[in-house]
Amino acid sequence: MILTVTLNTALDLTYGVPELVPHASHRVSEMSERPGGKGLNVARVLSALGHRTVVTGFAGGATGAVLRELLADLSPQQPADPGGTDTPGPGATSAPTAPTATAPAPVTDALVSVAGNTRRTIAVVDRATGDTTQLNEPGPLVTADEWAALLGRYEELLAGADAVALCGSLPPGIHVGAYAELVRSARTAGVPVLLDTSGEPLRRGIAARPDLIKPNADELAQLTGSREPMRATRDARRRGAHGVIASLGPDGMLAVTPDGIWQAAPPAKVPGNPTGAGDSAVAGLLSGLVEGLSWPDRLRRAVALSTATVLSPTAGDFDRAAYEELLPRVGIKEHAPAAR
Amino acid sequence: MILTVTLNTALDLTYGVPELVPHASHRVSEMSERPGGKGLNVARVLSALGHRTVVTGFAGGATGAVLRELLADLSPQQPADPGGTDTPGPGATSAPTAPTATAPAPVTDALVSVAGNTRRTIAVVDRATGDTTQLNEPGPLVTADEWAALLGRYEELLAGADAVALCGSLPPGIHVGAYAELVRSARTAGVPVLLDTSGEPLRRGIAARPDLIKPNADELAQLTGSREPMRATRDARRRGAHGVIASLGPDGMLAVTPDGIWQAAPPAKVPGNPTGAGDSAVAGLLSGLVEGLSWPDRLRRAVALSTATVLSPTAGDFDRAAYEELLPRVGIKEHAPAAR
Repeated sequence: MILTVTLNTALDLTYGVPELVPHASHRVSEMSERPGGKGLNVARVLSALGHRTVVTGFAGGATGAVLRELLADLSPQQPADPGGTDTPGPGATSAPTAPTATAPAPVTDALVSVAGNTRRTIAVVDRATGDTTQLNEPGPLVTADEWAALLGRYEELLAGADAVALCGSLPPGIHVGAYAELVRSARTAGVPVLLDTSGEPLRRGIAARPDLIKPNADELAQLTGSREPMRATRDARRRGAHGVIASLGPDGMLAVTPDGIWQAAPPAKVPGNPTGAGDSAVAGLLSGLVEGLSWPDRLRRAVALSTATVLSPTAGDFDRAAYEELLPRVGIKEHAPAAR
Repeated sequence: MILTVTLNTALDLTYGVPELVPHASHRVSEMSERPGGKGLNVARVLSALGHRTVVTGFAGGATGAVLRELLADLSPQQPADPGGTDTPGPGATSAPTAPTATAPAPVTDALVSVAGNTRRTIAVVDRATGDTTQLNEPGPLVTADEWAALLGRYEELLAGADAVALCGSLPPGIHVGAYAELVRSARTAGVPVLLDTSGEPLRRGIAARPDLIKPNADELAQLTGSREPMRATRDARRRGAHGVIASLGPDGMLAVTPDGIWQAAPPAKVPGNPTGAGDSAVAGLLSGLVEGLSWPDRLRRAVALSTATVLSPTAGDFDRAAYEELLPRVGIKEHAPAAR
């Protein structure tokens, strides 16, 4: 089982509007609602890849109840879809469309109830341009007792976990060293731990020596002060993470690990919505780790999944046929080991 | 008892952001949640004025449940506040601050449950400028059976009503002549009826001869094709409404009634947020009608209430001290009767 922790879960709303005009009134023409927060997105992708996943974190209030209802509906609503409803580009019809045998695995709700209301996030999608304007509520104030309950639940779940991902922002009331605490517990339990957050919680969390971090270029720059990928990634690793997988958007990923340094890139830049691409990459890395794949194969999977997420018409979902078509075409380049 | 009908109730969310930038990501710094839809806003003001109010319309799903919970909390949360937390302008300290004896009256929930989800509306307030960007979900699809249930509930409630207000947009599934149907039932029951809507539902509703309509300048122009207030207001009256009270924003109101024509204006233009000012005006007009006030006194109340709503720091609430201070200072001008 893979465990994902989302301390600040969210009910993700997507609103389609013809065009977003500040200070005007808009009638929302299309809307969708789904359980969100990075760890829940990671779990959705892991489930589609056939990995049993347990999600923990906090949920509360009316929005929390809706989130948990939608989460319960998740597994049965994601058949493996061997047909493919993707929109292949010219020439893609000759790509291998071998049906995958993977059936979706269950996502188990082990969220801890809180008195406060789970936050909403609203993605306003401008139908004219496809651009998205994001509005994120801060999340509920979590009490010391609720945090203690989470720690207890987490320790129990670690006992059965093959790997754990710690994902996203901290809700109000949670101390900035919370992820460091969760990283240490995972290491004590001998469970590989991936940390995907930003800012001060990332800085503190790295010092607790997680197995992996997956910052994007902005998060890396905020952490290290450098926008030069190799320099920043190495610097991040020196701060304590055993492996750093930097996601560089359309340029793919740079992995600086104890076993070597690799660069992985998609065969071509693709148009689409990058929302959730990072979460798909985390799912690729973790599933590859649990399956004992080599670093190049883990990176292939992570890059193919995140590219197939950008291509998907639904934000945050990945296009399975595109994923299978991309997987063998991800370029991997090994760097000569450099002095550290 | 005054009855208000809100076919498309809403859970109104207000998000404060430092500045709304299209295609960027925003952390919401402040948020509030309250029961909305025009008829619910009217009921809140009527309650504050001491009028027992019953609200009907539709509510459903998780958002409908939250709306009804907040509605149940409404009456006890609105003490009469004889102190005044207003922000009077220079010189206002000499204004009469006679404490009002009016205690808030209960708002009774007589909403009809529907299977669909009550809509959300989101007001994104730009803290830099005070400007608001509005996002309105369309509302639930209402079935024929649910509409029939509403008609039954409405007929029962009319039996005990002194006046009724029909307010706001129609949710999907409701036929465009719905308000005309509700106007006819009220007239058959002998209950004075005010219609406050726009577009085709207003056009159809007027033909059923409501006692009052309260269009704003845009709604009047859409209905009549004219932006000249007197011409447009008279034209609207010829279409079937017994009285037309045109709300002209900071210029006050123009009332064309069977008893005469009046213009009512606030003593000065005031800065603030006009959200809910029209709903406060409806509450002023209806309460004045039920109390048997003269037209000039009804208009004074409507203009003072809507101006005090613009002045209030909370969108849609009115500032009671400002209301009491403004009431005697609203200017009323009677027009000589003209040939119709």
